[in-house]
Amino acid sequence: MKKLLLAVAVCGICWGQAPEDCKPSSLNIPGAPYPCVHSDRSVTFRVAAPDAQKVQVRLSGSHEMTKGKDGLWMVTIPPQVVGFHYYSIAVDGAVTADPATRTFFGSGWDNSGVEIPESPLDAAYYSARDVPHGQVSQRWYYSKVTGTWRRCYVYTPPDYESNSKVRYPVLYLLHGWGENEQGWHTQGHADLIMDNLIAEKKAKPMIIVMDNLNAVKPGEDASLYAARGSIARLVVPEAAPAGGGRGAPGGARGGFPSNFGGAFTEMLLTDVIPMIERTYRVAPGRENRAMAGLSMGGMQSFTTVLANTDKFAYLGGFSGSSGGRGGFDPKTSSNGVFANADVFNKKMKLLFLGIGSVEGPGTKNFSNELTKAGIKNVYFESPGTAHEWLTWRRCLDDFAPRLFK
Amino acid sequence: MKKLLLAVAVCGICWGQAPEDCKPSSLNIPGAPYPCVHSDRSVTFRVAAPDAQKVQVRLSGSHEMTKGKDGLWMVTIPPQVVGFHYYSIAVDGAVTADPATRTFFGSGWDNSGVEIPESPLDAAYYSARDVPHGQVSQRWYYSKVTGTWRRCYVYTPPDYESNSKVRYPVLYLLHGWGENEQGWHTQGHADLIMDNLIAEKKAKPMIIVMDNLNAVKPGEDASLYAARGSIARLVVPEAAPAGGGRGAPGGARGGFPSNFGGAFTEMLLTDVIPMIERTYRVAPGRENRAMAGLSMGGMQSFTTVLANTDKFAYLGGFSGSSGGRGGFDPKTSSNGVFANADVFNKKMKLLFLGIGSVEGPGTKNFSNELTKAGIKNVYFESPGTAHEWLTWRRCLDDFAPRLFK
Repeated sequence: MKKLLLAVAVCGICWGQAPEDCKPSSLNIPGAPYPCVHSDRSVTFRVAAPDAQKVQVRLSGSHEMTKGKDGLWMVTIPPQVVGFHYYSIAVDGAVTADPATRTFFGSGWDNSGVEIPESPLDAAYYSARDVPHGQVSQRWYYSKVTGTWRRCYVYTPPDYESNSKVRYPVLYLLHGWGENEQGWHTQGHADLIMDNLIAEKKAKPMIIVMDNLNAVKPGEDASLYAARGSIARLVVPEAAPAGGGRGAPGGARGGFPSNFGGAFTEMLLTDVIPMIERTYRVAPGRENRAMAGLSMGGMQSFTTVLANTDKFAYLGGFSGSSGGRGGFDPKTSSNGVFANADVFNKKMKLLFLGIGSVEGPGTKNFSNELTKAGIKNVYFESPGTAHEWLTWRRCLDDFAPRLFK
Repeated sequence: MKKLLLAVAVCGICWGQAPEDCKPSSLNIPGAPYPCVHSDRSVTFRVAAPDAQKVQVRLSGSHEMTKGKDGLWMVTIPPQVVGFHYYSIAVDGAVTADPATRTFFGSGWDNSGVEIPESPLDAAYYSARDVPHGQVSQRWYYSKVTGTWRRCYVYTPPDYESNSKVRYPVLYLLHGWGENEQGWHTQGHADLIMDNLIAEKKAKPMIIVMDNLNAVKPGEDASLYAARGSIARLVVPEAAPAGGGRGAPGGARGGFPSNFGGAFTEMLLTDVIPMIERTYRVAPGRENRAMAGLSMGGMQSFTTVLANTDKFAYLGGFSGSSGGRGGFDPKTSSNGVFANADVFNKKMKLLFLGIGSVEGPGTKNFSNELTKAGIKNVYFESPGTAHEWLTWRRCLDDFAPRLFK
């Protein structure tokens, strides 16, 4: 049973025919031959829009499709970077998901997705393999801070049920802007990454809590967390006019409000962590607690942990942190938590900064500034990838083995 | 904390403004004011399609939208039946999901969905309430029968972790045609229904296994399980030509092949049940094992259980069973399992037939025929609902309390 399959190929049923040398994306609905990926990683799309005047695929820019017989529009776009990409189609100006793929929540709505496959060897770490599997559980809880019922997903390692006396450390792991609590196990394959790391004894068995970073208190402005960009202008045009307006939150840094992340941090400490520690067999104390996130979730993790170093000993930012935009001052940044490097280094057992190599030098610069200030940190770069899920899968694969040692 | 919220309102964030007297559907993406539901249950939709010539909403028929300023198309459709409805939009002939809602897998693709709310009292049984909550876990397993990695979801009741000595009975619960293993907890709220029943001591705590009924052995024709209808013609036109053809499986009854369900039954008995009984604390024996399903999943449940009455003691069909199309003969139907009513009644502790009142008389007729043949059965009718998820939520709510008594 040495089967190695992409985790996403859960249906196991494919009966449509794509052209030779073009393999249907593993994210397609059962039976859909398109989108398909050629061996050079170019991608062919097909959309049925019999009466349309103009149809585009929107993935790394807009690509005009050409109408063929029977109202089927097609286009082959240039070779794409390996990994998961969100995309959409535009039919006479209507931006929607392509009905040929499963959908994935990002940018505040359910996009289409396409997976450009790596070699089986490169993809092995996030593939379903013949190893013991943990599980991802949906957990409902009521947050007193937000005044709402909320949902998180919790990964428990393969031996969680059988080792009924063992207590486990916990990683709190956050998605990015416009995504939700489903991102890490659906787009990210966090569960399979951990199953494989644990099977190879590279990472300690741990619990991973995947919550939704979108949290506001009653009466607070939620617009930061709602869909923006082209879909927002389409779905909620009154909220995101072309020139900014209500959709553009005020605040100092890159459009984020000055109270960024406050409600989430309060909710995490008040509602989520106590609920998790009541419900699961959790090892106690800060040295058994880590937090990380991607993009906006990385910012949130830095905001939460650097203000609460008494509660967390491990911190990771994947394509997102508290730095990288310039203006870092070890004496004053993050309320002076970096001011005494010795104290910080003794307290925080890991400060991890991950980034895709084509995302720009900001994170590398921040790592250098931290190092110059005497702050120990780990810098990880994913070769050839951008602000996308393959970067973050690789980040988790490098980050998790460093935890709870 | 006597909050009563629709389970689906997980985001807790709504900042778009729908017209007064029109409440955004609970299935909308965060911030989207449309679709919204008026107090008379009529529904207003809005789609941005600036350059389109013709836009329709497809829900209980096709509804032409009218173009307004800024390329926004709108329509208000007549009052709808309460509950969950799949729908799609058509933009110049391109059928897609409406980007304003979360998507839901049905008919083989990710549709949009709208929830027409019931009164809070009527909806209470499938709403998130202040009661102990079980969890739904994603479980990977390798099927030797299908030769694929597969995923199921497993509900464990609220006290499963704390009562670490108790063994629980198991209900195997199937979705319908074109749906998948996500349907029962996403569209159906099976977890919340059970949480509420268990809290009120109406149902025994039980494990529920929600697998994917789409199963074929290597080399078997999978077309029965792929998207058909209008989306199939669009996404996979070569497989489902207008006049039938490859997309139309042969076989005797209503288009189903004569070997219907064989691979699933074999896989359930060979792979799934042993995996579940190895992994969870399961009470042994047929009297602790039930199976039910909706529509095609009801057919599958009847096919599996009636051929394996030594393994199951409870059987339910929600808008689907082995009968209801005429031609029932107690002596010969289902290989004669009903031929001796006394033997059957002694063996099967529950035979449950549920249906929506507007689905036609087939299921009622089948129940009457069974009764006439001396076969004990329970007939449940959901008032005013059709072949849709509210019928099946109500079926589960009536069915589950009858199990494992």
